[in-house]
Amino acid sequence: MNAIFSFNVTRLLAALSMSLDYTREGLTSHHRRVTYIALSLGQKMNLSSEKMYTLFCASTLHDIGAITFADKHKLANIEIVSPEVHCEKGYQFLKGMSQFHHSALIIRHHHHRWNQPAPDIDSDLLTLSYLIHLADRIEVLLTPSYILSQRKCVIDKIRKLFGSYFPPEYEDLLLETVKKESFWLDLESIYLDNIIENMLIPTPHIEMRSQEIKDIASIFASIIDSKSRFTHRHSSLVCATSKELARLAGFSGEQTAQMEVAGLLHDLGKLSVPESILEKQGSLTPEEYDFIKQHTYHTYHILNHIPGFSTIAEWAAYHHERLDGCGYPFHIDGASLSTGSRIVAVADIFSALAEDRPYRLGMKQEKITDILQKMVKGKGIDGDLATLLLDHYDTFDHLKNSLSS
Amino acid sequence: MNAIFSFNVTRLLAALSMSLDYTREGLTSHHRRVTYIALSLGQKMNLSSEKMYTLFCASTLHDIGAITFADKHKLANIEIVSPEVHCEKGYQFLKGMSQFHHSALIIRHHHHRWNQPAPDIDSDLLTLSYLIHLADRIEVLLTPSYILSQRKCVIDKIRKLFGSYFPPEYEDLLLETVKKESFWLDLESIYLDNIIENMLIPTPHIEMRSQEIKDIASIFASIIDSKSRFTHRHSSLVCATSKELARLAGFSGEQTAQMEVAGLLHDLGKLSVPESILEKQGSLTPEEYDFIKQHTYHTYHILNHIPGFSTIAEWAAYHHERLDGCGYPFHIDGASLSTGSRIVAVADIFSALAEDRPYRLGMKQEKITDILQKMVKGKGIDGDLATLLLDHYDTFDHLKNSLSS
Repeated sequence: MNAIFSFNVTRLLAALSMSLDYTREGLTSHHRRVTYIALSLGQKMNLSSEKMYTLFCASTLHDIGAITFADKHKLANIEIVSPEVHCEKGYQFLKGMSQFHHSALIIRHHHHRWNQPAPDIDSDLLTLSYLIHLADRIEVLLTPSYILSQRKCVIDKIRKLFGSYFPPEYEDLLLETVKKESFWLDLESIYLDNIIENMLIPTPHIEMRSQEIKDIASIFASIIDSKSRFTHRHSSLVCATSKELARLAGFSGEQTAQMEVAGLLHDLGKLSVPESILEKQGSLTPEEYDFIKQHTYHTYHILNHIPGFSTIAEWAAYHHERLDGCGYPFHIDGASLSTGSRIVAVADIFSALAEDRPYRLGMKQEKITDILQKMVKGKGIDGDLATLLLDHYDTFDHLKNSLSS
Repeated sequence: MNAIFSFNVTRLLAALSMSLDYTREGLTSHHRRVTYIALSLGQKMNLSSEKMYTLFCASTLHDIGAITFADKHKLANIEIVSPEVHCEKGYQFLKGMSQFHHSALIIRHHHHRWNQPAPDIDSDLLTLSYLIHLADRIEVLLTPSYILSQRKCVIDKIRKLFGSYFPPEYEDLLLETVKKESFWLDLESIYLDNIIENMLIPTPHIEMRSQEIKDIASIFASIIDSKSRFTHRHSSLVCATSKELARLAGFSGEQTAQMEVAGLLHDLGKLSVPESILEKQGSLTPEEYDFIKQHTYHTYHILNHIPGFSTIAEWAAYHHERLDGCGYPFHIDGASLSTGSRIVAVADIFSALAEDRPYRLGMKQEKITDILQKMVKGKGIDGDLATLLLDHYDTFDHLKNSLSS
């Protein structure tokens, strides 16, 4: 199974990038704005459309190495302690994918200062690192007050950094770029995504194999799983379990490939939940539980915004819905829950029960069987799929063991 | 010229509705949220797709009668003094268009209280008025704090109003609707427009004559012009002047029809500017001038978001750009300014100079000629178009006089 999709990678990355923009303060626009600023500077520099696309990829994912709300909070100041940590982490996430090899290098150096010894990287790529660094430092200076009133203050602060943080010759480039009122108004436009897309015309026509889409999904699965030490490898196990259940249920090769992506990304919306809640020992307050309930909402809407991903979005995001309609957050019932969605629900429960957690070992077959059967009786999950899993218990147990070894 | 367009009216209204959502606090989501809440209630009520569409139209425009920031501010409290003023004004704006006859009636009664004598209106329409009233009162109770934490407080307050404001039998409908976490999360989703569009599937296939599009544009032109007593009929004069200039410049019938819409809506973004700035006597501070500069930015982006309106958006919104690139807010220069955009720029200047204002009479031909010629020399406006206007001065003078009589 390695079909070639001609794919709108721009939309895919823009959507996934949104999952990186949740912070203690809710959804921010950090990645989108940095992308817009960097591309605006790139336009003024007359970068080729190929380089503009590389700049888009790198800036859209530039803080992929800052995963927890605590990590992100540290980066929101103009002076940062040890920025290289998230740069290196971001590099490690992306370097394995040939599609993102350049982006990985650019991200690795996106806090490199011009007055420090030049790193061992192609100078064309370093240029793009500088643009992202400059864009990033502008973005963190923006406040919620009226955007056009902030111009002087922001630019005055940034100008002091040319010759140390940034190459001196970029100063004129910046001043040319920021003199348009529309540059600033774009930064708070509700149409910023469209504006960014229009900056990439001609739209790069990127072909991706389904393996490559799975690779990107795997990167985000690692990010999700590393947000909390409680859920180490959870996304991988849900992916493997869902895939095997789909195969046993007679899904086609293409459907099974989609199921893998759905499994890997089913908890994508957890990136919107404070880690203090994900890791809380003991029971949650109703408000904390509300934050948990929002995670599959965001999984759905982020994925559904990617062209061609509507089925994956449903399969991934409905895993806390119940056949009796009492799940969350959409309260969809059995009449509307597809087999794909039911598979991920069963796989998620099996995985959660079978996995070791820091505060308990994974449950044994007997206990898991008992719980699943009760959930079937209670009209929570699909009986046929639960039976399918229990009938092939050794297969699923083996999957779990191979992933946790 | 009365071509029939098969037109996405949903997008047209959603975009224009955004211009109604600017307040002292910047861009709000009042109309979008009220629309979403009303449609959610309508879905629970199993309204026909035809009624859902009518409900969409009425809720998307429900506060069209509240024009100034001061008017809007008054409506943001749960208890409102004299809500009937903006209801009646909204009715007057819309009643003349057969397309919006029902919407006009619904809007007229969207603050009608159930325990008051029933107004003389079809009960099916009154149902939709109640839904909008209910949605509207929920929306004004929402605060910027975490959305899921507000549920109880908002619903407790609203429940007290059944049997007085709202029909008692709507209480269960509301409780059914609000139990989904997704209902609340949708309210602050950046994808709310898409979510609303999906609630109207099957998408109503509405045919509009170009005359009807012009009629809607005329309604918004009246709204723009009535925001400030300084600009009484300004949009109409810019429309008439642009149309005549386009005709003289050899534009086709279809292009001239587009030009009329561009002329009517060229100042649409002024709805984002505080009236205190629009009406200020004496010179503006730099910050106040920034607010003025944002108006054509918003004209552009609101119109450009309507499918098929990209040309109209350019013509309408570039009227403060200059051939030397020193205009605002996009700093586009002569190489990129189309004839259509140049026409509206010349028409806007001519109209502003020729119109009477509360603090001065309109200028005479000689003065206007002098100013236009200086602007041509200064590379502000197009010389050929200025000459065309001056060569046919009597025609344009007559247009002005007929509109101000």
